[in-house]
Amino acid sequence: MAKAFLDKQGVLYKSIDVGEDIGSAKKMTELSGQRGVPVITVDDEVIVGFDSQRLNELFGNTGSIELYDVLIVGAGPAGLTAGVYCARKMLNTIIISENIGGQALESWAIENYMGYRMITGEELMKKFEDQVRTLNMRLELDRVVKISKEDGLFTIKTISEKTLKAKSLILTQGNRPKKLGVANEEQFLGRGLSICSTCDGPLYKEKKVAVVGGGNSALQTAVEMSGFTQSVDLIVRSSIRADPVYVKMLESKKNITLLLNTQVTALHGDKFLSGITVRNEKGEEKKIELEGVFIEIGWLPNTDILDGFLALNEKKEIIVDNNCHTSMAGVFAAGDVTSVKSKQIIIASGDGAKAALEAHEYLLKSSSK
Amino acid sequence: MAKAFLDKQGVLYKSIDVGEDIGSAKKMTELSGQRGVPVITVDDEVIVGFDSQRLNELFGNTGSIELYDVLIVGAGPAGLTAGVYCARKMLNTIIISENIGGQALESWAIENYMGYRMITGEELMKKFEDQVRTLNMRLELDRVVKISKEDGLFTIKTISEKTLKAKSLILTQGNRPKKLGVANEEQFLGRGLSICSTCDGPLYKEKKVAVVGGGNSALQTAVEMSGFTQSVDLIVRSSIRADPVYVKMLESKKNITLLLNTQVTALHGDKFLSGITVRNEKGEEKKIELEGVFIEIGWLPNTDILDGFLALNEKKEIIVDNNCHTSMAGVFAAGDVTSVKSKQIIIASGDGAKAALEAHEYLLKSSSK
Repeated sequence: MAKAFLDKQGVLYKSIDVGEDIGSAKKMTELSGQRGVPVITVDDEVIVGFDSQRLNELFGNTGSIELYDVLIVGAGPAGLTAGVYCARKMLNTIIISENIGGQALESWAIENYMGYRMITGEELMKKFEDQVRTLNMRLELDRVVKISKEDGLFTIKTISEKTLKAKSLILTQGNRPKKLGVANEEQFLGRGLSICSTCDGPLYKEKKVAVVGGGNSALQTAVEMSGFTQSVDLIVRSSIRADPVYVKMLESKKNITLLLNTQVTALHGDKFLSGITVRNEKGEEKKIELEGVFIEIGWLPNTDILDGFLALNEKKEIIVDNNCHTSMAGVFAAGDVTSVKSKQIIIASGDGAKAALEAHEYLLKSSSK
Repeated sequence: MAKAFLDKQGVLYKSIDVGEDIGSAKKMTELSGQRGVPVITVDDEVIVGFDSQRLNELFGNTGSIELYDVLIVGAGPAGLTAGVYCARKMLNTIIISENIGGQALESWAIENYMGYRMITGEELMKKFEDQVRTLNMRLELDRVVKISKEDGLFTIKTISEKTLKAKSLILTQGNRPKKLGVANEEQFLGRGLSICSTCDGPLYKEKKVAVVGGGNSALQTAVEMSGFTQSVDLIVRSSIRADPVYVKMLESKKNITLLLNTQVTALHGDKFLSGITVRNEKGEEKKIELEGVFIEIGWLPNTDILDGFLALNEKKEIIVDNNCHTSMAGVFAAGDVTSVKSKQIIIASGDGAKAALEAHEYLLKSSSK
């Protein structure tokens, strides 16, 4: 990060790898009084660690702070769509995101994005990005760490120590699935292991599957899958915590096997998942042969930086109305980060468009004040 | 319609064109005591006009009434997307619509549907329809004339005298723009005459345009267009009926000319619009050269059949929450027919998906009762 910062600011420097050079390592320890890297020396000053604040003071752009009409956080389906709509409304727009495409990138076969019978998430997000790139807006890879409002303007600080100002915000930073925490989890994602039954469910007709989780969505997924699969093992870490309506449904399904106080300890398979190992509270392990595992243990919305700033629901999602307004004027939100129940690419895109058009109207109205 | 009905029911008949055959025309008048067509004779009975009720009694399917999990009204972007999501959830689904594609068909260059940099409405709707056709659901061209709820089931009657029952409804029947009421209006639509400034606005940079209308959306469009066009004539039939905030904005724009008590009386141009004629309250006419006219005189949601059945807003749009629920359990709505402010293909599609997934959850929950 230090090197990337210095490169970006056009600062010439000499890089020494202390892992390769024992003499330098010793000198570094003497100079800094500690052994962590990086250590940066500037004239007589010794900077320990990536002290972005000090580096910015020394080398950062001291020019005026940038002011935008709209700052969009996130570049998944919602953020990219919002960007296209904002730019077409001639708004001075910047998108700040840690990646381009968000979680959509992880879908390997999307069959429910209208306009494409079948497309990979990566291909679709490339198309979204290309559409953004044809228009006049900035798209920067960075992470927003603080948002505040002063004098009617929003101030945004990023992890690279940048400060930006914006007249309105569109928040689309998504959420992240909780993980099973077993080996090879990443490898089997999209190859038998799924975090979206709405997306992947239809691929498992007449097959043996398992659902992991004990909440409403896990039970709903198990009941739904039981209708067209051969069998469903519902694997619950402790006990069921779901509405009685779902428990009742569960009990009426003969091809669902309930495994309480049980967790998944291993995933098996060559290219595709072919089985799992589970362990119960007595420590007994068994192997189950199956073709699909649906993880329904919850999601974590990326709203840590918003706590106390905006109204969030009990899941820590941003509460929005049907036009994507949040609890604060000038702040709009769309996609998986919001209180909208279904998390889908086409839904995030549609709401991204709503958020952008509402931001446009907000700016029109406030410009006349 | 009579022939189509008889063909559909497999009834053999002889068709006589009374416009071609004076003898038959005379015989028809004698038989029916009037001169309107069609006149249908069945044995000794004479049926005047397309009496669908009587024809159904004589030839209709008398089998049991069809029962669906979901009945979708409308096959524009919202309805077709809802159909795809319902079918993928294995719901027994029927779409009833007067056309396939809705108003999206009239867009000749869509640049803000994510995934396609530029596509015609017809091409895009063909892709949506193809996606629907790959799945297991029915799509019928018909018009819904009555919806009621009895014993927890919805009963739907169509203009072809069909009665269907459904456990849940998704309403996506759209709206229709009010018209100027001048000659050649259809011909210039998409060729200089626009009903969507969000869609077509960017094409008119540095050009002379007019906006027709005196409400909030007309003033907002005029202000917005004035920012990047050469000039805007705002043509208002009587006086302005908009919020003060928009009137104030309007006054601050030097390149907007306000024409009160004025209406458009003619459209000029060869292939594309090149000018209009307007007339003021004194009857004085003048010709204005310009390249674009944006009609902002309002929309009429297709909700006549819903008055008293569902909660509508002051514009007669179906009121929905951020998950596309309406005021009645089991009834969901999406697209231009709803209270969602922005009317866009991607927004209708996203909300169509929401409505379908909520209908699915509703059906799951009610099946366990």
